[in-house]
Amino acid sequence: MTTTDHGRSPVTMRDVARAAGVSVATVSHVVNDKPGARIGEDARRRVQEAVLELGYRPNALAKTLSQGSSRFIGLVADAIATTPFAGQIIHGAQDEAWKHGYVLLVANTDGNTAAETDAIAMMLEHQVQGILYSTWYHREIVVPETLRQTDTVLVDCFAPGSGLPAVVPDEEQGGRTATEVLLAAGHTRIAFINTTTPSPAQSGRLAGYRAALEAAGVPFDDALVLPAAPEQEGGYACTRQVLASQATAVFCHNDRVAMGLYDGLREHGRRVPEDIAVMGFDNQEVIAAHLRPPLSTVALPHYELGAAGVRVLLGIDEAADGLRRIACPPVARASIAEPRS
Amino acid sequence: MTTTDHGRSPVTMRDVARAAGVSVATVSHVVNDKPGARIGEDARRRVQEAVLELGYRPNALAKTLSQGSSRFIGLVADAIATTPFAGQIIHGAQDEAWKHGYVLLVANTDGNTAAETDAIAMMLEHQVQGILYSTWYHREIVVPETLRQTDTVLVDCFAPGSGLPAVVPDEEQGGRTATEVLLAAGHTRIAFINTTTPSPAQSGRLAGYRAALEAAGVPFDDALVLPAAPEQEGGYACTRQVLASQATAVFCHNDRVAMGLYDGLREHGRRVPEDIAVMGFDNQEVIAAHLRPPLSTVALPHYELGAAGVRVLLGIDEAADGLRRIACPPVARASIAEPRS
Repeated sequence: MTTTDHGRSPVTMRDVARAAGVSVATVSHVVNDKPGARIGEDARRRVQEAVLELGYRPNALAKTLSQGSSRFIGLVADAIATTPFAGQIIHGAQDEAWKHGYVLLVANTDGNTAAETDAIAMMLEHQVQGILYSTWYHREIVVPETLRQTDTVLVDCFAPGSGLPAVVPDEEQGGRTATEVLLAAGHTRIAFINTTTPSPAQSGRLAGYRAALEAAGVPFDDALVLPAAPEQEGGYACTRQVLASQATAVFCHNDRVAMGLYDGLREHGRRVPEDIAVMGFDNQEVIAAHLRPPLSTVALPHYELGAAGVRVLLGIDEAADGLRRIACPPVARASIAEPRS
Repeated sequence: MTTTDHGRSPVTMRDVARAAGVSVATVSHVVNDKPGARIGEDARRRVQEAVLELGYRPNALAKTLSQGSSRFIGLVADAIATTPFAGQIIHGAQDEAWKHGYVLLVANTDGNTAAETDAIAMMLEHQVQGILYSTWYHREIVVPETLRQTDTVLVDCFAPGSGLPAVVPDEEQGGRTATEVLLAAGHTRIAFINTTTPSPAQSGRLAGYRAALEAAGVPFDDALVLPAAPEQEGGYACTRQVLASQATAVFCHNDRVAMGLYDGLREHGRRVPEDIAVMGFDNQEVIAAHLRPPLSTVALPHYELGAAGVRVLLGIDEAADGLRRIACPPVARASIAEPRS
């Protein structure tokens, strides 16, 4: 087993394809000497020359052994199944890993410590380049000890004092953006239904709401911040308080809360957006895009969190002060109109 | 590089753990000679003996090379991001792979042919044991040629004449079960809002609906089958037809349709379930569990599809006639009551 001439990083099929000016599929066909594949003689020759020149070795595992590390990046997630969100993190991480010639090894642990230890051990056995450790909602975590054995980036979570870089959504900017959208439509009496669960989302979105009001010269009124369970039932239960507050617009902690509030408002004969404007958070597609009227909201950037995690791991992006905040962009639909004068 | 004594399948850390009567984490600590790990002398000795006896090699990739195939199973999915469903397939496949000492390599292709070819080539390079090829909704596909180079199982899709085994949801049983739940509650005039999109779900659920009615001695009435786009907007648009049909119960093609129908019924002053019973399909948790009232439905068994796919690939389960149908179980919530007499 020999190593390649240029010792930096393993040569991939993509490198060969680029050098030969052909597709990866063509390289695969030539390298694996697949009978029946229709490859022109010219392309075949270019691939063979590129293979020799770059020192490409078709067996990825042999290549890994000769290099001492693999083209794998591990992703440990605490919950894929229960949320469409984690899937987006995986999707972003995979696309980005792929772009740089890496393959993602995914492990779902369901928050089970034994499964997590097993998953990390397996990834270390496979000599991963590093591990993305992700949670399905933004929170503070305690870092598993075994992660110290490889490069690790935290995704959608953070661990102060751990020294590990973290990529998280910018909750404060998201809250500010949501409020600014309502202010821009002419609202000044804006209620905020916030979650009762302590979290970066709870404090960050509130801080953003306050910052936007302050910047617009609208006094903050504590009575307009309404606590609710962060799901449909919480939004529904909040309806009377919303109406009593005389708010002309409501910023909801998430889209599920907005969905419940829609039901409550409808029961009280109020129309969205004619009688009251509603802004969500999350952009949970299956809900936000299909409510009546479709819900304007702010997107949690899960795809971008996964992609940025890979870039930080590979040293392409920096995480200043250990934390990289990803913007939550607004998504305009049809739940906001000007206040009735 | 030597091979192990017993040439059948590579020895895993799990085998060592089992033989030594300790956890995989303990084996990992001993094998990687991690300083600071608190492992008792007795456990350490048992692990070392098991390692020698079984011929375990801590480097998974070296092991793979010596065996000619890896402990990887590939999963190619056409869409992770746009649906919570695909995540469940991955979750089930991963848990089952894990159970048998395999690691899942996941690739999301977004239905892009070039990405798909790349993903499969990469998996072949890593000498996967086989590939699960999955789609996020049940449909007929054309099998990519490159899949012929390894063992392949189709998951949530099928390709007649391809000779490849397929694991799919039992749409007909699901439709029958949904209808039977409504019949058991005393309904006999049951509308069925079916999708306008030709698919195994469209034909299978209709066949199940008819079979259940026939078994109960209720004549099939074509006027009770209402076509609709398979989302909230379709269900909402169907409201007048549902009311005109005088049905006392409605079986909806999916939970999203039911969500739209809820809105329409509410606008017409009809209560669920007192005035009309509603049954969904899919068990899309974020919707079904949180509608008012929570929606009774039939679950698409995505987790089980993934797990069964791995079992068929490893030869643990058989796919008789090339097709393994997975049952869609009923999920009782609060949207069904007896008809008003």
